[in-house]
Amino acid sequence: MNHNRRPVLKLGVVDFGVESAALPNGVTIDLAVIRHPGASAIVAIDASGAIPLLTQYRHAVGGWLKEIPAGCINSGETPRECAERELREEAGLVARQWDQLGAIVTIPSFCDERVNLFLARDLTEAERELDHDEVINVERVQLDEALAMIGRGEIFDAKTIAALHLAREFLRT
Amino acid sequence: MNHNRRPVLKLGVVDFGVESAALPNGVTIDLAVIRHPGASAIVAIDASGAIPLLTQYRHAVGGWLKEIPAGCINSGETPRECAERELREEAGLVARQWDQLGAIVTIPSFCDERVNLFLARDLTEAERELDHDEVINVERVQLDEALAMIGRGEIFDAKTIAALHLAREFLRT
Repeated sequence: MNHNRRPVLKLGVVDFGVESAALPNGVTIDLAVIRHPGASAIVAIDASGAIPLLTQYRHAVGGWLKEIPAGCINSGETPRECAERELREEAGLVARQWDQLGAIVTIPSFCDERVNLFLARDLTEAERELDHDEVINVERVQLDEALAMIGRGEIFDAKTIAALHLAREFLRT
Repeated sequence: MNHNRRPVLKLGVVDFGVESAALPNGVTIDLAVIRHPGASAIVAIDASGAIPLLTQYRHAVGGWLKEIPAGCINSGETPRECAERELREEAGLVARQWDQLGAIVTIPSFCDERVNLFLARDLTEAERELDHDEVINVERVQLDEALAMIGRGEIFDAKTIAALHLAREFLRT
């Protein structure tokens, strides 16, 4: 990828650089841009209509956040393989039925992260495997209750909101 | 704010640094963290049920994106004042009725950006004022059609998806 990019620092999945951006109106500006490998996030719904909802410590936002299972794509992984791995590691679940709900961008003004959203069904339990820097509790919540938690401001993570609404629409059709 | 932060580079609203994060499980890790002033985004609905939908060039994601009016909070501004300014500058609209729909986080793994979501009603037209680095076209779309565009993958910006769904729920109650 060539964006007249001057690399600044790469730490973990965050690859920070300054790029000279030629805009369609003829203006060229220097932009701070994070190049990111992409991620996958999963709404995993069981036969009773319940989904795993994580409560995860997030240093950057200074506290605990309710989120669906999600994580960054490792080198060589497809989005679907990433989704399968994250669902197992974070929620201890394996799914036999997978559907892609779409893909979203999170901060298009300075980051190219795309989060691939999946619906996973036909679930069986597996062993969880958290990374040393993951602090996560898992509860099971009915999809309708999770949607109500968005309305009450208890779920405010953007990918989780998008995925839950897309899952509801998908399951309705 | 003290996070044992080592500043790396600040360009525009992107303040990039490396922080020593003490996690609740006793582990301490170095994290790349973007500190961000926050933003506001607006669903502005007129008497016919139509909203302004922007098509905006976004260098970081390499193309044009459909988004609701939004922008970063300037120094000294409240989220509401930011919303009023962005709605006027980007969509050429002034609203007399405002409701806050909530606030979302966009990339909680490494950025503290919060986007405040507003519903604006009772609209009148005003002069648009784009920044030199903004390349934006505005169309008017029925709220229901915008929601259908999410389902078809034509709208995939996370804040826009969250705001449109929250606006629909708010208007239903």
